Amino acid sequence: METVVKYVKENIDNYLEELKEYLRIPSVSALPEYKEDIKKCSEFVAGKLKAAGMKKVKIFKTDKHPLVYGEWLGAKDKPTVLIYGHYDVQPADPIELWKSQPFEPEIRNGKIYARGANDNKGQNFVHIKAVEAIMKNSGGLPLNVKFLIEGEEEIGSPSLETFLKNKENKKLLKCDAVLISDTSLYAKGVPTLNYGLRGLAYMEIELTGPNRDLHSGSFGGAFANPINELAKLISKLHDKNGRVTIPNFYKDVQKAAKFEKDNFKKLKFDEAKFAREYGVKELYGEKGYSTLERLWTRPTLDCNGIYGGYTEEGAKTVLPSKATAKISMRLVPNQDMKTIVKEFTKHVKSLTPNSVKIKVREMHGGAPVVIPIEHRAIRAAARATSRAFGKETVFTREGGSIPIVVEFMKELKSPVILMGLGLDSENIHSPNEHFHLDSFKKGLLSSVYFFEEYSK
Amino acid sequence: METVVKYVKENIDNYLEELKEYLRIPSVSALPEYKEDIKKCSEFVAGKLKAAGMKKVKIFKTDKHPLVYGEWLGAKDKPTVLIYGHYDVQPADPIELWKSQPFEPEIRNGKIYARGANDNKGQNFVHIKAVEAIMKNSGGLPLNVKFLIEGEEEIGSPSLETFLKNKENKKLLKCDAVLISDTSLYAKGVPTLNYGLRGLAYMEIELTGPNRDLHSGSFGGAFANPINELAKLISKLHDKNGRVTIPNFYKDVQKAAKFEKDNFKKLKFDEAKFAREYGVKELYGEKGYSTLERLWTRPTLDCNGIYGGYTEEGAKTVLPSKATAKISMRLVPNQDMKTIVKEFTKHVKSLTPNSVKIKVREMHGGAPVVIPIEHRAIRAAARATSRAFGKETVFTREGGSIPIVVEFMKELKSPVILMGLGLDSENIHSPNEHFHLDSFKKGLLSSVYFFEEYSK
Repeated sequence: METVVKYVKENIDNYLEELKEYLRIPSVSALPEYKEDIKKCSEFVAGKLKAAGMKKVKIFKTDKHPLVYGEWLGAKDKPTVLIYGHYDVQPADPIELWKSQPFEPEIRNGKIYARGANDNKGQNFVHIKAVEAIMKNSGGLPLNVKFLIEGEEEIGSPSLETFLKNKENKKLLKCDAVLISDTSLYAKGVPTLNYGLRGLAYMEIELTGPNRDLHSGSFGGAFANPINELAKLISKLHDKNGRVTIPNFYKDVQKAAKFEKDNFKKLKFDEAKFAREYGVKELYGEKGYSTLERLWTRPTLDCNGIYGGYTEEGAKTVLPSKATAKISMRLVPNQDMKTIVKEFTKHVKSLTPNSVKIKVREMHGGAPVVIPIEHRAIRAAARATSRAFGKETVFTREGGSIPIVVEFMKELKSPVILMGLGLDSENIHSPNEHFHLDSFKKGLLSSVYFFEEYSK
Repeated sequence: METVVKYVKENIDNYLEELKEYLRIPSVSALPEYKEDIKKCSEFVAGKLKAAGMKKVKIFKTDKHPLVYGEWLGAKDKPTVLIYGHYDVQPADPIELWKSQPFEPEIRNGKIYARGANDNKGQNFVHIKAVEAIMKNSGGLPLNVKFLIEGEEEIGSPSLETFLKNKENKKLLKCDAVLISDTSLYAKGVPTLNYGLRGLAYMEIELTGPNRDLHSGSFGGAFANPINELAKLISKLHDKNGRVTIPNFYKDVQKAAKFEKDNFKKLKFDEAKFAREYGVKELYGEKGYSTLERLWTRPTLDCNGIYGGYTEEGAKTVLPSKATAKISMRLVPNQDMKTIVKEFTKHVKSLTPNSVKIKVREMHGGAPVVIPIEHRAIRAAARATSRAFGKETVFTREGGSIPIVVEFMKELKSPVILMGLGLDSENIHSPNEHFHLDSFKKGLLSSVYFFEEYSK
C-alpha cells in the first residue's frame, strides 16, 4: 500500500480540484428549482465511480432524486464493503451570512468552504478517490466494493428506504459491512469510530379546558387552565433526580458495558468547558451519570415545543381553551419504541385531571442501535484510522439518531462502520460550512488503509 | 314621570331608527382607516346631546380620538350625575362570519344586530334618549347631568386617562356619582348592578437554558431544558388545593362580607349548567369556595400564554434555548398591585434552578375595586332598575377589570354605578354582536326612573 499512499499524497491537489467541481453543483434536494442540478450531480458521481474503475455503474431513478450505484467484485473469497454516502445538500440560506459563495468553493486557512464540503460530498469523495488510487496502482482492490450514493438524505431518504425493502435490491447491496463517513471526529485530529445511536419516540399532547378561549378576568378561577395543567403534567414526567417517571421506562435499558465506562474515562470529556461553550452555569441531567453517559447511554425526555394562549408581543388576558406540548424521548438499546409510546400514553393520561381533556398523538420515531465493535470490519477500521491519524482510535456514541443506519442493519444484516471525518464546529446545515483539508487527507489514507486491513 | 314613561314607550321605534344611524357609522378606534368615521361619530353624538337639551356641548380634541361632553346643570341643590359611555367600537373582523353586515344594523327575533349594538352604542344611547324624553316632557331634569362619551375605550382610553388627571377637567367632571352602562345583566330580564371588579398584575417570565437552540438528540440529557424547567416552575405556583403559593399573596385579601355571601346564595348560580356550557366535565379552582366566590372575590393566577421551541405542525427535535410564559394575577381588594408584583418576582426567582436563567418583566396592571353599595346613588339605581324590570335588582361583582372605573373613583372621588344592560351571550368583540330590544327598552325606563329616584 505504500505506493498507493505516496500516490494519494502526490495527488491531493488534483483531488481537491475535482472536489471543487463536485461542490459547484448546487444539488439541494429540498427545493424543486434544483431538480436539474440534482440530476447533473448524480451523473457527476456516476462519472467519478466509472473513473475509479467501478463496474455496472447505474443511476436508479426514484420517485424523487436518483440513487447512484457502482461495484467492483473481483476479489474472490474476500469481504464485500458497501460504501454509502449522499450527494445532495442542505439549502444554503441565509446566503448573506456566507463569507464566500456557498456553491463557489474557496480554500481559506487549511479549510475548504462550500455547502456540502463536510456534509457529505467531502466525506464520500474521500472513498471514491481512495478506491481509484488503489485501482490505478494495483489494477484491482484487495476486497469487494459497492458504492451507493443517494440524493435524498437531507429530506429523510424516502426512496432509499423503499429501495432497501425490495428483495432484488437487497441482493444487489448484499455485503459484509457498510462504511459511512457522515459523522464527526471526537476532536480535531482524533481518529473516531461511532458505534451507537439513540432512538426516538416523538409525541404530541394537547390539553383542552373550556371549549373556547375565555376572558381570564371574567372566567379566571372557575376553570382549570390548560397551560397550568400542562405545566403540572410535564413537571411530573421527571422526579427530583432527573429520572423519567414513566412506568417501565428504564426496564429494558442496557447498562453501559465495562469497556464503555473505561472508554468514556479515556475521552476526558471537559464538562466545565462544555457548560461554558453553551453559556450555562450548570449542566443538568439524570443523577448518578456523567454528561457523556447521559448523552450516549441514557434515555431522556425533552419538551421540544410548547404553545398555548397568547404568544405574541405584549399582553392579552386570555384563559385559553387549549395548550400543546411536543415531547420526545431519546431511546437506547434495548428500549422498544412501541412499548415506550404505549407506556407514555398511559402515563400522561393517568396524570390528567378530570377538569381537562387530553389528546395524545404519536408523531414519529426510530429504534436505537449499538454496533458490535468487536466485529472484524470495525476492528479493521479502527486500525486503519489509527494508522492514518497516527493516534489511537477512540470509540464514541451519539445522542441523536441516523435512521438509515438502523435501516441498513435491519435490511442488510450487516454492521455499519461510522468513520466520521467531520468536526462539530464545521457548520453543517449552516452558513460557512467547511471541511478541514487535514481531515480530507487523513480520510483518504484511512480509506486506503481500511481496504488493506479488512482484506487481511 | 308617568308621562315620560308613556312618551318613551311610544317613541321606541323612533329611538331604534336613530340607534341604527349611530350603528351605521363604522367608528373603529383601533384602525387608522376609520379616523374620519370616528370624527363623524363624535359629531353625531354631540348632535344627539344637543337634541337632548344639553348645554355647553363640546368636542374635545385629543392625541387620538375626540371626547364628547355636554351638561345640564339646572337642578339647584340636587345631585350631579356623570354619564359615561363610548362611541368607538371593536373591529368587525372576521367579516365573513357575520350573518348581516356589521355596519348595517338589522333587527331579527327581538334583537338588533350590528357592531356596537351592545358595546357600547346601544347602552349609552339609552341614557341620551332617557334624558331627552324627560327634558321634552318636563322642560328640565330632576337632577344635574353631565355626559362624557369617549372614542378610545376599545384601545384602552389613553386620552381619557390623561384628561382626568387635569385639574380643570376634574372640575368640569365633578359629580356625585358616575353612571355607566357597559356591563351585563346577571341573566336575561334580571336587573343588575355590578359593585366590584378585580384588578390585574400581568407578568412575563422567560427562561434561558443553553445559549442557542440545540439538537435534542445530540444534546438531550446534558442541559436543563427551559420548557421542562418552566413547566416545573409554573406547577409550583399553586398548591394542591389550587391556592397560589406566592408568599403574602392572600395577606391583604378582604373576606367577602356576610351580605355578599347571602347575596351569592340568592343568585342561585347553576354550576352544572355553567360547566356544561363551556364543555368541561369538572370546574376547578381554589378549594373551599364556590365558583362565584372564586370569580368575584378571590385572587387568581393564570397562564395567559406559553411558548418555546418548535410550535408549528409536525415534529422538530430541538432542545430550545428559551421558553416564555405570560402569567397574570387577578387581584381583589385590598391587594396592592406593586406588592404583588414584587412578591411574584421574588418567588419565581427563588424557584429557578441554577441550570437556567430567568428574566421577569412586568407588563401592565390595575387596581381592584369594590363600590360601596350603600351609597345613595347606588340605592336609587337599584330601586330604578327594579321598577323598570319588575323584579328585585341583584348585585354582582365581575372577575375582570374596567380600568376606567378605577380611574373615575380615584380622580373624581365618586362612586360608579355599573348599570349593565348587555348579556354575556350577545357576542361583544365577536361576529354577530347584538343587543336585546327588551334590554334597550328596560334600559330606557331604568334611566328615567333613576333620575327620579336619585333626585328624591
